[in-house]
Amino acid sequence: MIRVGVIGAGGIGRGHIKRIVSGIPNAAVVAVNDINSESAKEVATEYGIRYEEDPHQLIRSEDVDAVIVATWDKTHEEFVVSAINVGKYVFCEKPLADTSEGCRRIMDAEIVGGKKLLMVGFMRRYDTGYRQMKELIAKGNIGEPLLVHAQHRNAVPTGETHTTEMSVSGALVHEFDITRWLVGDTYATAQFIAPKSTRNATADLLDPQMIILSTKSGIHIDMEIYMNCRYGYDIQCEVVGEYGTVRLPDPATAIFRHDGTCSKEVYMGWARRFTDAYKTEMQEWVNCVEKGDLTGCPTAWDGYVAAAVAEACTKARVTAQMVDIDMIEMPAFYR
Amino acid sequence: MIRVGVIGAGGIGRGHIKRIVSGIPNAAVVAVNDINSESAKEVATEYGIRYEEDPHQLIRSEDVDAVIVATWDKTHEEFVVSAINVGKYVFCEKPLADTSEGCRRIMDAEIVGGKKLLMVGFMRRYDTGYRQMKELIAKGNIGEPLLVHAQHRNAVPTGETHTTEMSVSGALVHEFDITRWLVGDTYATAQFIAPKSTRNATADLLDPQMIILSTKSGIHIDMEIYMNCRYGYDIQCEVVGEYGTVRLPDPATAIFRHDGTCSKEVYMGWARRFTDAYKTEMQEWVNCVEKGDLTGCPTAWDGYVAAAVAEACTKARVTAQMVDIDMIEMPAFYR
Amino acid sequence: MIRVGVIGAGGIGRGHIKRIVSGIPNAAVVAVNDINSESAKEVATEYGIRYEEDPHQLIRSEDVDAVIVATWDKTHEEFVVSAINVGKYVFCEKPLADTSEGCRRIMDAEIVGGKKLLMVGFMRRYDTGYRQMKELIAKGNIGEPLLVHAQHRNAVPTGETHTTEMSVSGALVHEFDITRWLVGDTYATAQFIAPKSTRNATADLLDPQMIILSTKSGIHIDMEIYMNCRYGYDIQCEVVGEYGTVRLPDPATAIFRHDGTCSKEVYMGWARRFTDAYKTEMQEWVNCVEKGDLTGCPTAWDGYVAAAVAEACTKARVTAQMVDIDMIEMPAFYR
Amino acid sequence: MIRVGVIGAGGIGRGHIKRIVSGIPNAAVVAVNDINSESAKEVATEYGIRYEEDPHQLIRSEDVDAVIVATWDKTHEEFVVSAINVGKYVFCEKPLADTSEGCRRIMDAEIVGGKKLLMVGFMRRYDTGYRQMKELIAKGNIGEPLLVHAQHRNAVPTGETHTTEMSVSGALVHEFDITRWLVGDTYATAQFIAPKSTRNATADLLDPQMIILSTKSGIHIDMEIYMNCRYGYDIQCEVVGEYGTVRLPDPATAIFRHDGTCSKEVYMGWARRFTDAYKTEMQEWVNCVEKGDLTGCPTAWDGYVAAAVAEACTKARVTAQMVDIDMIEMPAFYR
Repeated sequence: MIRVGVIGAGGIGRGHIKRIVSGIPNAAVVAVNDINSESAKEVATEYGIRYEEDPHQLIRSEDVDAVIVATWDKTHEEFVVSAINVGKYVFCEKPLADTSEGCRRIMDAEIVGGKKLLMVGFMRRYDTGYRQMKELIAKGNIGEPLLVHAQHRNAVPTGETHTTEMSVSGALVHEFDITRWLVGDTYATAQFIAPKSTRNATADLLDPQMIILSTKSGIHIDMEIYMNCRYGYDIQCEVVGEYGTVRLPDPATAIFRHDGTCSKEVYMGWARRFTDAYKTEMQEWVNCVEKGDLTGCPTAWDGYVAAAVAEACTKARVTAQMVDIDMIEMPAFYR
Repeated sequence: MIRVGVIGAGGIGRGHIKRIVSGIPNAAVVAVNDINSESAKEVATEYGIRYEEDPHQLIRSEDVDAVIVATWDKTHEEFVVSAINVGKYVFCEKPLADTSEGCRRIMDAEIVGGKKLLMVGFMRRYDTGYRQMKELIAKGNIGEPLLVHAQHRNAVPTGETHTTEMSVSGALVHEFDITRWLVGDTYATAQFIAPKSTRNATADLLDPQMIILSTKSGIHIDMEIYMNCRYGYDIQCEVVGEYGTVRLPDPATAIFRHDGTCSKEVYMGWARRFTDAYKTEMQEWVNCVEKGDLTGCPTAWDGYVAAAVAEACTKARVTAQMVDIDMIEMPAFYR
Repeated sequence: MIRVGVIGAGGIGRGHIKRIVSGIPNAAVVAVNDINSESAKEVATEYGIRYEEDPHQLIRSEDVDAVIVATWDKTHEEFVVSAINVGKYVFCEKPLADTSEGCRRIMDAEIVGGKKLLMVGFMRRYDTGYRQMKELIAKGNIGEPLLVHAQHRNAVPTGETHTTEMSVSGALVHEFDITRWLVGDTYATAQFIAPKSTRNATADLLDPQMIILSTKSGIHIDMEIYMNCRYGYDIQCEVVGEYGTVRLPDPATAIFRHDGTCSKEVYMGWARRFTDAYKTEMQEWVNCVEKGDLTGCPTAWDGYVAAAVAEACTKARVTAQMVDIDMIEMPAFYR
Repeated sequence: MIRVGVIGAGGIGRGHIKRIVSGIPNAAVVAVNDINSESAKEVATEYGIRYEEDPHQLIRSEDVDAVIVATWDKTHEEFVVSAINVGKYVFCEKPLADTSEGCRRIMDAEIVGGKKLLMVGFMRRYDTGYRQMKELIAKGNIGEPLLVHAQHRNAVPTGETHTTEMSVSGALVHEFDITRWLVGDTYATAQFIAPKSTRNATADLLDPQMIILSTKSGIHIDMEIYMNCRYGYDIQCEVVGEYGTVRLPDPATAIFRHDGTCSKEVYMGWARRFTDAYKTEMQEWVNCVEKGDLTGCPTAWDGYVAAAVAEACTKARVTAQMVDIDMIEMPAFYR
């Protein structure tokens, strides 16, 4: 039984708590903290768990085996490093840190500790559709991957303010990770394109945006991020190879014929779209923690790569240039 | 250049005239007749062709090489036999005759004449989707066919009065023919089932209806005929074999994502659904007439089988029994 | 925390144990029994739970709050009644009993006890696709249901011997339940049709079979059951109403373009096809047991109806007649 | 009856001749020419039409009402201008000329003549799927278009030598035209990206390639051109708007379930994929010529735009820069 402490009692954190409590028998949530103490107390009461006023105390608690960090992005690094420093397993929501430098410090801490303790919440790796794609690619069924086309569409942005940068660092970061995981290559360059914006975007939001990445071996990846598509939460991905292509399937929803149309539902939100992937992610993390072996889980390196790509995208946007994605050598620790 | 005379200037007849005039270079429509002389004259004027007051005179006309019969069902036999008797090619709309006896007399006339002159308008045999199904079945890709599930749905009935029998003799007759063509077997028994009727049916119409047929080798075929499905003209067909199944595809229509749904158009009418099949049918008929060889075209025997099945369905309905489908031996002439 | 005892340590029983142990935090499996003691001991060792030699002792155990019966069909009644008699919640795999009489005795026991204690394992009610269909129907989006077309195909039968009757009582029983659940009506008549059998069936198995049911209000339901379709485990269902239709979606699997085809995987087995439905079923059962309220779960009455339909199908097969489905009045207890 | 002379008796020219002869009653092919006289004589013999040794004589022939130019790209201009100069209608295969300068000279000739005589063979405008997309967009169903994603894949290149430039000027030119036709905007910039090449490409061919265009209003368009995708001829197009998206449907092909997969055919060649569009194109051209009004047909301006975009793409490739697409003002004549 893994005893989990959760820092961050907002939507994501509550989601993880609920998933553990209602679906993961070999884990229990024992403590919760949030900078908003009211919110954390509310959750503590709802689930009958301890409220911890100090997040670092939560991390150090003897009855906490593993920590979930689901706080404001800028605080991820502090809590993750704190957990690593006391040798505790930690699951951190994406993005791992708000800068690649922060991710590097996390890696440094983990390397010094000498043990992989961190998993980053790139939950798409746990989605059945992406897993089937990866399997087909890994078997060589499409030959070498040459191109990836990805679309990431939200009906409306979550939260009140949503900036151009948040589209990339908060949402498209999923594509940065999953694409690399699918094709197994290293990113080389990034380019930013701002198409005409939808009238539904706020004044300071470029929406949609296009990001174009290349990999060391020359794979071309184009990614659309569109936060106000209005019609639903829609994630598309096609990998094009030398002999064929694989494409992410749409969710299976009932087929309805009516009034001159044949239609099916498009889910409106990410929580519904990836319900199963979130469940599988949390279950597999707990299982890995139980075994004491995080092999196969998204690592600090994966978080670093995503952050480095996001930074390169910003640089590409600000400079209006294609930029190299600067990254350190992958530490041997993460091979 | 095949010179065609058309008897019947209603919707179907006009459709054939338009198809020939606008799309078939090796044919010309030279004369038109209809019991409603106004209607025929209107068409004659529109296309600059001769109006013939007497249908039999039209058939005998020296400048008519081939005749299209698109009149009221009960008059098909008279005109078809008249054409055969003067040795002219004739294309007759389904049903070939309003009774199987009528079809037999047509076969007799054709056999006496000693030459295949008749093609029946079972246009689904010219549809790409059905042809692909037949090819897959013929190649043995699904093994022996064991079951057929077919649905024939109209948005609303054509014409003011539509009876229970007309659903079968006028509409489902297409399924009687295409199913036999797909699986290559002889019908044995028929059964009728009247489900609950839709509120949208008139008082004297059972709608939908289910017809169940079996073949000599034991293939089971269930057919839904539904004249008031309201949502569109929808034709479905699945053949289930020992190792797999083949299914008729829906028409390719643009994919529209909007407001929480992903949808595509379902065409409302048969003319739109089978536009290409109707064109191909007429072109292939003209080509066969030009070559003087109707091999491969739906024959009087095919028309007879469909009529015999329709009669068996009526008998099954009236007697509320499963009935044998009584048919004569297939004349050697049609083998 | 619901403490569960499991009787039956075969494939299904083990599946339930695994689902509880690995995915249901508010339940624990505490004891297991099987007529094959080796099998039960093996499971007991694997999961560190108690082996109980006597199933009735397992039921009576103080540390068992609820019982799962996943034994040979003929023994369901004995264990279910035993559990009810001591006032314990019991989950019974379908079919509830091997005769409708057996189901009646179970209902009698439950009524005497005065509390709903039984849930039958009709897991399709927990499948997302069926739930979406039901929701669309319940909203009135297709008007009144008039027809249901269902296909139930297994790649190959499970187990060494598989009889004609087992196709109906063991497999098609799912359709008997889910169809009634979708359309909300009472069955009236049953008819059996034996099409030509596949060469892949054993000598004493009619395969495929067609079953035709009607309901009191006249809804027509045709069901294909085919145990040797070879190509996969494929479940299809379409409900046709006055204004539209709803159809069960195929599972979402990755889209693969290669060598002149666009294809997606069809799962080969029921466990993969309905993974999520099985999980949801067990979770919702445990939640209901925890609340002490089984409202909404499939009841003994549902089990009885399915058994009565299966018996009518056998009668229809043996007598080669359409037969009335004889059922008692629904006891007020189950309304 | 429009009497057509055809210059160019290769695959495309023969296709047009066959379409007219076999499917267009209000046109006849009367003469044929090709720089390869053997080829032209062969076609002349096959169809019983006149062989003309001199293409300019063919154009001037009294019995030629309209000319089809289906020759080597570099000769298009010469023949098109020759036809315009004698006041004859001319249909020219894409690309209209091998340079935008050539297209300008063609426009100049047409403007001087004072009458629209030219149609360019952008046949996708006659495809049902694209027409449905355009209709949905034009109705405002997706709001303003913001993005277009297009993929153009050939199984293998046609012809022995295929260069990087030919992928754009010969194949992707279809996308240049159809995209502009769908979204109704003017191109502004072009960018070229060379991903990793497939091992199946020859040494001097970059394959696949990505082209990125923008329009004056800021619509972003990314286009994949891939001549060796091997699995089929596959054309994809999605237009993303402010409130929804429209996507080109795949062709309707029979659905085949077998051996753990559900699959449908992907056509291997463009001729099969766009059979109907080619027929409709030729029919509508002949109808327009007959009426003496080419309104609605792709014009010299459309040909010029496509050529200007292709040149910008080459410049973008050679300079490795995003480039402006230099175009003259649209002459009032073409508004």
